[in-house]
Amino acid sequence: MKLAELSDRSGVATATIKYYLRERLLPPGHRISATQAEYDEEHLRRLRLVRALIQVGRIPVATAREVLAAIGDETRDHHMRLGAAVWALPHGRQTDEGDAAGAAAGHTVDALLQRLGWDFCRETGSEAPPYRTLVSAVATIIRLGYPCDVEQLLPYARSAAELAVSDLDLVERYTAGEEQVEAAVAFTVLYEPALLSLRRLAQAEESNRRFG
Amino acid sequence: MKLAELSDRSGVATATIKYYLRERLLPPGHRISATQAEYDEEHLRRLRLVRALIQVGRIPVATAREVLAAIGDETRDHHMRLGAAVWALPHGRQTDEGDAAGAAAGHTVDALLQRLGWDFCRETGSEAPPYRTLVSAVATIIRLGYPCDVEQLLPYARSAAELAVSDLDLVERYTAGEEQVEAAVAFTVLYEPALLSLRRLAQAEESNRRFG
Repeated sequence: MKLAELSDRSGVATATIKYYLRERLLPPGHRISATQAEYDEEHLRRLRLVRALIQVGRIPVATAREVLAAIGDETRDHHMRLGAAVWALPHGRQTDEGDAAGAAAGHTVDALLQRLGWDFCRETGSEAPPYRTLVSAVATIIRLGYPCDVEQLLPYARSAAELAVSDLDLVERYTAGEEQVEAAVAFTVLYEPALLSLRRLAQAEESNRRFG
Repeated sequence: MKLAELSDRSGVATATIKYYLRERLLPPGHRISATQAEYDEEHLRRLRLVRALIQVGRIPVATAREVLAAIGDETRDHHMRLGAAVWALPHGRQTDEGDAAGAAAGHTVDALLQRLGWDFCRETGSEAPPYRTLVSAVATIIRLGYPCDVEQLLPYARSAAELAVSDLDLVERYTAGEEQVEAAVAFTVLYEPALLSLRRLAQAEESNRRFG
């Protein structure tokens, strides 16, 4: 398809598509003349992912390029590409203040992972960005004087495990390896706002049940 | 306690506390002389909440003031104060583009709420900010060409319902009415980054199980 059709089918303005091409967020089209190029379904798929990253995830262009590089990195096996791509997504702040709350949070997270039997996460430990973000989030809660121990985190972790099963089931609807990795990244980003809204709606429903 | 002790116990600098007092995010202390005021446990509790809203929730001062006003609004019953306070929290973008994806998203969310039997949320409908954010999140997913129907959203909604039970159990550890509303707001904000990190860790664990 031509650039105009790629724009129509994706709903992304041609000027924006040209910008993504210049920034190497999209692979170049197949040249058919000095002034025209052809684009295919892979371009359309990639364009949707770029929109998800930038529009919903509000990810800077340079970071989006890293995420896309991890998706296409054929030196890694499927699981590691999936992990590297999702982990390259920026995600909250990681403040390591090295205080008592930080140390307590580290112990709490390690005890939680052990209790859950999440052995892969225990092995990767602080190499994984979400591990560091979790420690930082727990440290902040402790620092502000609110309770946050293994018992309190367990139900959230168990819900997260169920969510991950739904997430990976969605991913497995896609057959090709690279498409699966792309879908995993897109669903991680796109379902976050939906999940947080659903949590607030569910809180209203539960609050009405208890106190209404 | 004096201002210095309030600062020590909360870990918040005295200059920052004075700023919050000027901005009416904290009630004034009890004057004991022309230059000194006394603060109590309620000030400490309120200060922790203000930190949670501003530092973790990154909520503008004016919005934080609205959330705090809703917490203290004694003209509403307990459930409505809780709802109003949580709903005053800013939460994602709500873009209503009035296109086919927006209409499809509205139908999907209504069908989802009916399927779940979330009657309180069905009644309040689009008056509730999280309802509008959810419709907007679903519309974005559809607009980008990814699947998002009732069947796909159901497992996320069911996890959200379980999370809400944990959330409200935490809230009910606090006995006083106003303390419960404060805790609900704080936990909503503070557990969001923890939940999203746990989801990514759980994805890594589940991915390793399936593809590792």
